[in-house]
Amino acid sequence: MSKPVVFVSDLGLRDEFVGVCHAVIAKISPGSTVIDISHGIAPHDIQAGGLMLAESLRFAPADAVGLAVIDPGVGTDRLAIAVETHAGRQLVGPDNGVLSAAWRADGGVKRAVTIDSPDVVLQPISSVFHGRDVFAPAAAHLAAGADLSALGPSVTASALTQARLAEPEVERGKISGEVLDVDRFGNVRLNIRPAHLTAAGLQQASALHIATLGEQADAPRIRTYGSVGQGDYGVIVDAWEWLAIIRYEANAAADLGVRTGDPVWLTAAD
Amino acid sequence: MSKPVVFVSDLGLRDEFVGVCHAVIAKISPGSTVIDISHGIAPHDIQAGGLMLAESLRFAPADAVGLAVIDPGVGTDRLAIAVETHAGRQLVGPDNGVLSAAWRADGGVKRAVTIDSPDVVLQPISSVFHGRDVFAPAAAHLAAGADLSALGPSVTASALTQARLAEPEVERGKISGEVLDVDRFGNVRLNIRPAHLTAAGLQQASALHIATLGEQADAPRIRTYGSVGQGDYGVIVDAWEWLAIIRYEANAAADLGVRTGDPVWLTAAD
Amino acid sequence: MSKPVVFVSDLGLRDEFVGVCHAVIAKISPGSTVIDISHGIAPHDIQAGGLMLAESLRFAPADAVGLAVIDPGVGTDRLAIAVETHAGRQLVGPDNGVLSAAWRADGGVKRAVTIDSPDVVLQPISSVFHGRDVFAPAAAHLAAGADLSALGPSVTASALTQARLAEPEVERGKISGEVLDVDRFGNVRLNIRPAHLTAAGLQQASALHIATLGEQADAPRIRTYGSVGQGDYGVIVDAWEWLAIIRYEANAAADLGVRTGDPVWLTAAD
Repeated sequence: MSKPVVFVSDLGLRDEFVGVCHAVIAKISPGSTVIDISHGIAPHDIQAGGLMLAESLRFAPADAVGLAVIDPGVGTDRLAIAVETHAGRQLVGPDNGVLSAAWRADGGVKRAVTIDSPDVVLQPISSVFHGRDVFAPAAAHLAAGADLSALGPSVTASALTQARLAEPEVERGKISGEVLDVDRFGNVRLNIRPAHLTAAGLQQASALHIATLGEQADAPRIRTYGSVGQGDYGVIVDAWEWLAIIRYEANAAADLGVRTGDPVWLTAAD
Repeated sequence: MSKPVVFVSDLGLRDEFVGVCHAVIAKISPGSTVIDISHGIAPHDIQAGGLMLAESLRFAPADAVGLAVIDPGVGTDRLAIAVETHAGRQLVGPDNGVLSAAWRADGGVKRAVTIDSPDVVLQPISSVFHGRDVFAPAAAHLAAGADLSALGPSVTASALTQARLAEPEVERGKISGEVLDVDRFGNVRLNIRPAHLTAAGLQQASALHIATLGEQADAPRIRTYGSVGQGDYGVIVDAWEWLAIIRYEANAAADLGVRTGDPVWLTAAD
Repeated sequence: MSKPVVFVSDLGLRDEFVGVCHAVIAKISPGSTVIDISHGIAPHDIQAGGLMLAESLRFAPADAVGLAVIDPGVGTDRLAIAVETHAGRQLVGPDNGVLSAAWRADGGVKRAVTIDSPDVVLQPISSVFHGRDVFAPAAAHLAAGADLSALGPSVTASALTQARLAEPEVERGKISGEVLDVDRFGNVRLNIRPAHLTAAGLQQASALHIATLGEQADAPRIRTYGSVGQGDYGVIVDAWEWLAIIRYEANAAADLGVRTGDPVWLTAAD
């Protein structure tokens, strides 16, 4: 029984990159369903892509192989890796941290290999597109039932690159966080969870004061997108339990002048 | 035998929303093919999305479950519903009218339920994304063979929300219609069928005069996109039997200053 | 056993065109996987789409049916064709050259038919969208196991339209080529292969001088995207073995003022 593949990348859909990875997978594991989570990750944004993979796998079939192709170091000596987590999930991608959120969610790495078997990688390996020649074939072999050891020699789990999400700084009445991601509506996802509000004593505040490097605004706490007041900002808990700043029929990110990685400070509104 | 799912939404492909719905469906009904009609519906455009679902289902497998996630009221008390039509088609979506064009094309609603079974919806239900937690699981359970009654208690068909397409006003020599949709080329689909031209006595006119709130133009009736004259407008019958206004290598909607819902008047050109 | 379908088009993903083709295929050949290579080909760009199909099929399952819907002549008297190559591959599309790169890669056309069987095409045939009514059904019947002859009568292979890629002019120390395609990052793919550099005696040049109609620049030969110097141009061999011009965190096509089809001259940099 072929396993599904859950696929995240920054390759975009305009060009043939994603489609050719699908072709490669279909050739090696014809019975596998490929579940495209998104290919619209900002180019080289390892953190956003890794987070999206980890959060999506929670909703995917238990045996789905995770595949992440966000690979600014393609052609350099960074390793191509496949990982088996303590929960039994298999993950494939470059050793640049893009897989680490997914394995942490699964209790960590049980074993790992570097992908170099000539029975797996496509020859000649392009020095500019390992998605097609290394990662898609490796994920497809695992989806078809191969053991991790068929892909190449073991590597030490502790030597793998980790991407650690910046934690917000929490003090009494104030949280210093940053922008995790901006979606296509301009909604601003912060690296802040409801638990951080509680830790700062802000859980009862009916509205929050938002400060960025250049702008500030007051935003009521709201529970649904529809309840933001006309012209207003709102702070909502999004579908992945992050705090997000939205604005009524407007682009909150543009209005607040922020992009991924920018600092944001939250306090109670007056 | 798993049924396919035909999926329409305004969720876009940049973010993870659509991909996570695919993951949820694959977990519940691994053998189902998900057919993505479009996720580029303008945000909250219930009429355009509902029409696209209805028109696409005509071409889909007879047993395909229709799934529409265009849900401006997510988190409010609007119902989540599943419907079985008189033709035997199953449909899933919010009770805001987005399914009504599809059930009318099928002879109406035979029975309907509200989706609230704890065996179906994912817990905790996010208040901002019922696509993932309510609609995709419900469609997947139906696709895996569940009966409608497994999703939740019956609701009265006559109480369901309907979105009624605005009908054009037809008089002798004149049709007052409106813009149904604008495609990515700027082609303008009207809520006007060839039968309306006949009713207005305009079926023999080799060219039509188009008036909008701010612009006017003459447009020959043409049969193929390629036969529009250089610099000219043309009126064509599109692939879903709607009249559409196109312009030679140009954006007809921009040039006529119209958007979805705007009025358009057709008469015979001199 | 149903075959997969490899699908390339200029239909875009915003509208329902591609999704409805998927619905049609699922109805006729429910077991077929549809592999979407790209639907972002520039409208009517037969050369780029045909090349993408040919290059992608190399990586696809051997029995996959190739389907190309780039069809500026829809509704005119251009033929709709299905082709079997000498390598045994089946291809479906309009007779405008979009399939010719794929059959040349396979040793040429073994036999060909025009698609007009009333058991295959959907009635009524729209005069504006043969993707849905002619090409998708034909590809699906082949994918479900039909013989080419079931689609319609034979046509003479030598009468089919061919799109020939412009070959660069190579002289000692100079190559006159043109832009094949520009990807979403603005990287400029040329119709030039590493073998052309060798033929011009430029294979040892560590940097090339690039001239366009309006701009010029020097660009080192580089092997990975990551090795382009800050602010610099670079010339790379891309994943399909074409020379491509890139620029550090910039849009090389915009900076060089070129689009698909524009001339580019390469000589050795000083």
